[in-house]
Amino acid sequence: MPDPDSVVERAKRDETPVHRASSADAQRIAALLHAFNTEFDTETPGVAVLAERLRTLLAGPSTFAVLGGDPVVGVALVTLRPNVWSDGPVALLDEMYVAPEQRGSGIGSAILRQMVEICRDLGAAAIEINVDESDAGAMRFYERHGFSGTDPDSGERAFYFYRSLEPAN
Amino acid sequence: MPDPDSVVERAKRDETPVHRASSADAQRIAALLHAFNTEFDTETPGVAVLAERLRTLLAGPSTFAVLGGDPVVGVALVTLRPNVWSDGPVALLDEMYVAPEQRGSGIGSAILRQMVEICRDLGAAAIEINVDESDAGAMRFYERHGFSGTDPDSGERAFYFYRSLEPAN
Repeated sequence: MPDPDSVVERAKRDETPVHRASSADAQRIAALLHAFNTEFDTETPGVAVLAERLRTLLAGPSTFAVLGGDPVVGVALVTLRPNVWSDGPVALLDEMYVAPEQRGSGIGSAILRQMVEICRDLGAAAIEINVDESDAGAMRFYERHGFSGTDPDSGERAFYFYRSLEPAN
Repeated sequence: MPDPDSVVERAKRDETPVHRASSADAQRIAALLHAFNTEFDTETPGVAVLAERLRTLLAGPSTFAVLGGDPVVGVALVTLRPNVWSDGPVALLDEMYVAPEQRGSGIGSAILRQMVEICRDLGAAAIEINVDESDAGAMRFYERHGFSGTDPDSGERAFYFYRSLEPAN
């Protein structure tokens, strides 16, 4: 598997246009997230609703996004929250999506590196991601980029637990 | 294992004083969190630093805490972040701690129920928790309270991945 610091990977990265999104990108990001959920048969409120929310969220201090490709074919969406264990916030990579035909081109790595740099600039203490158990490819991708699924002290993994408060459909 | 809706459990709950914390509780919460990390051999910046942060966080819109017992022997600390998939925020139970000698008394359940009610009042779409793989007791506790470690659609678990951005010690 490619080393993200290899000469080839660095060259790919330097050729990959990535930028931090503004509210003006809301429609484009909404289209990608809608495609993401549609690809994986997950419910989506539709592009218009997502775009409206993103316009608000991206104008605030707790959400940012990184876009990759020209035209844009990939997105990382990150939210920040305060945390008592650190002075800075904790970032969560809520969504990471690259259009199917563009996977393996280095765009995902370029987006992720830019995302980490923005988190650093914002003073974030850590970045978290919840990864589906079956998604070995995603785990390898994040591990290559310095993420770990085990606690450095205990060597233990942690599971993501969840309770919806929305009325059942 | 006790059913949280049983008569006995409800009686215990009704007898357990729980309240949403204010900034004035910062010192008390800091002492509990410090005891928590000390019990589990995890690093802690100390009571003074935690109390200072909590005074700020509890005065803001993105953090709340629930305290249980009189005197206080348990705490739940929750942070909120926006999310593109819902109108309301998503809540994360960052910390849940009951002093060792008080465990099994129903205080944890009373705190958790109050925490869920506050999340509802705040319009949260969901509550998330990261639970250590070995902590079967915690998993059972959260499952009894309506949390699930598997995605309702895919039946899959998700792992918590993490990258620290703080300088290594």
